[in-house]
Amino acid sequence: MAPGVSNEKKTEDEQSSRENSIHLCNPHLEKMKEDILYHFALGTGTHDFPSLFGDVKFVCVGGSPSRMKAFIAYIAEELGLGSPGGDYPNICAGTDRYAMYKVGPVLSVSHGMGIPSISIMLHELIKMLYHAKCSNITIIRIGTSGGIGLEPGSVVITRQSVDATFKPQFEQVVLGKTIIRSTDLDEELAKELLQCSKEINQFNTVIGNTMCTLDFYEGQGRLDGAICLYSEEEKLQYLKEAYDSGVRNIEMESSVFAAMCNLSGVRAAVVCVTLLNRLEGDQISSSHDVLVEYQQRPQKLVGYFIKKSLGKV
Amino acid sequence: MAPGVSNEKKTEDEQSSRENSIHLCNPHLEKMKEDILYHFALGTGTHDFPSLFGDVKFVCVGGSPSRMKAFIAYIAEELGLGSPGGDYPNICAGTDRYAMYKVGPVLSVSHGMGIPSISIMLHELIKMLYHAKCSNITIIRIGTSGGIGLEPGSVVITRQSVDATFKPQFEQVVLGKTIIRSTDLDEELAKELLQCSKEINQFNTVIGNTMCTLDFYEGQGRLDGAICLYSEEEKLQYLKEAYDSGVRNIEMESSVFAAMCNLSGVRAAVVCVTLLNRLEGDQISSSHDVLVEYQQRPQKLVGYFIKKSLGKV
Repeated sequence: MAPGVSNEKKTEDEQSSRENSIHLCNPHLEKMKEDILYHFALGTGTHDFPSLFGDVKFVCVGGSPSRMKAFIAYIAEELGLGSPGGDYPNICAGTDRYAMYKVGPVLSVSHGMGIPSISIMLHELIKMLYHAKCSNITIIRIGTSGGIGLEPGSVVITRQSVDATFKPQFEQVVLGKTIIRSTDLDEELAKELLQCSKEINQFNTVIGNTMCTLDFYEGQGRLDGAICLYSEEEKLQYLKEAYDSGVRNIEMESSVFAAMCNLSGVRAAVVCVTLLNRLEGDQISSSHDVLVEYQQRPQKLVGYFIKKSLGKV
Repeated sequence: MAPGVSNEKKTEDEQSSRENSIHLCNPHLEKMKEDILYHFALGTGTHDFPSLFGDVKFVCVGGSPSRMKAFIAYIAEELGLGSPGGDYPNICAGTDRYAMYKVGPVLSVSHGMGIPSISIMLHELIKMLYHAKCSNITIIRIGTSGGIGLEPGSVVITRQSVDATFKPQFEQVVLGKTIIRSTDLDEELAKELLQCSKEINQFNTVIGNTMCTLDFYEGQGRLDGAICLYSEEEKLQYLKEAYDSGVRNIEMESSVFAAMCNLSGVRAAVVCVTLLNRLEGDQISSSHDVLVEYQQRPQKLVGYFIKKSLGKV
């Protein structure tokens, strides 16, 4: 039966011997002749993973397929790897569940919305990177979120991903039993990213806690869903409690992202822009152009970080 | 604070007075001048909902955007409403979160994977149908699933959607507190759908319980995810317990779908094909052509049901 947080943590020995490679927490996989990554429409029997993905060092993930396509074009340009007007084929073209793009050492993958959707993607991504024998991987989620007490357009780098009761943990049901997993993220990486934001100096960036919910409307205390059975006062009290506990933004994927990267020994960060200040409203009513510019901020920050990591700044 | 199941149930008076229209469980919406359905890229200030959607009677939802596009072309042909080689524009072209298509009284909407993803879509869909003043709506989820103890390709019409402990309920966290909602579905509609399957007589169809999980790998007892800390015996014991409790298939959206349709007074059903028998394995390894044919079965069944409901059979 699956144990809780403490037993799942890698021992120091394991950590140091496998420091830079993916830690696959599944003994059953070694017995499989072929591994079909169904939601990627890729498989070890049909694709040569080491040659396709062996050089990957940075994986950026985000909800929207078109935004992840825009990101790969942006990073190709930034790294001087793109051909002018070049197109980037979708590696997962055999399915419409996720989209995946690659340029040089950077992989860009969409994950849809919510914990279950990103969880399926991460299971297959982690196995893919393992089969490809990748090492020294950094995974960063770039996304959008609701802010609490921040000017819209601010970028939040997640210190801890917390649940709807502000606890830094992820509850998962395995074989019908609830287990708790740690949502630790890499502190050093968060600081490096904050430093990058200072260097580009184009928008407000903070390190703060991120609340991860299973629902966008009732789960985040919105008043504008199809169902809402609480008052505006109850909503504001909840959001203020979140703020007082250190929460600066709310999104829907960071907890399982942190938990799975943590168990797999992958350096991970979450960088989200806030589209509105939830203390002032629920509806996302900024103009399309303003939202597009906001959504580019995590891309710019992470693009700069990758360039700097590769010695290209 | 949001009450539990019993208090949320509509009284009989409410039920009969609003029998055929959408029941909007949110008093705050009446105060809003404009309602922006952000993830649909539609809004009451920019779109005339009654004229765009007022004639909708059947809403079919499913995970994959391309499958929902294929469904609208299929139903247009079946209802004799399609122009030869006609294209069906995506009504949500302003976003890549969901795709929506319409022909005559039928709306076809994608919902992505998992409870949070379909929940966002349903909040916006229910509000959209309410703003459009729709009445007598039937919503059917057509999807894919893992089967338990059934020949792959069998179709399961859901009797009850149950959680990972086989209870017919949906747990939701609202303002940090857990509430329980009923996952009742329309019994009569399930029987009508089973009768339709008998009439078309092309594949095995059963009425059974559907387990709805938050995860595809560990949450469904698979051995082939990136993380698996249980044995094959523990897995099989869990799946057999599920079978013994009446579960015939496993998917990831039915519980919140049932709960939200139920609260909104909309007649709802879940019709999923099983892609594999989970007692015999985890990997979906059937050929592409076989899977495509399986995935058409819920479409065929629901297409026939709509034709019959409209007196076109």
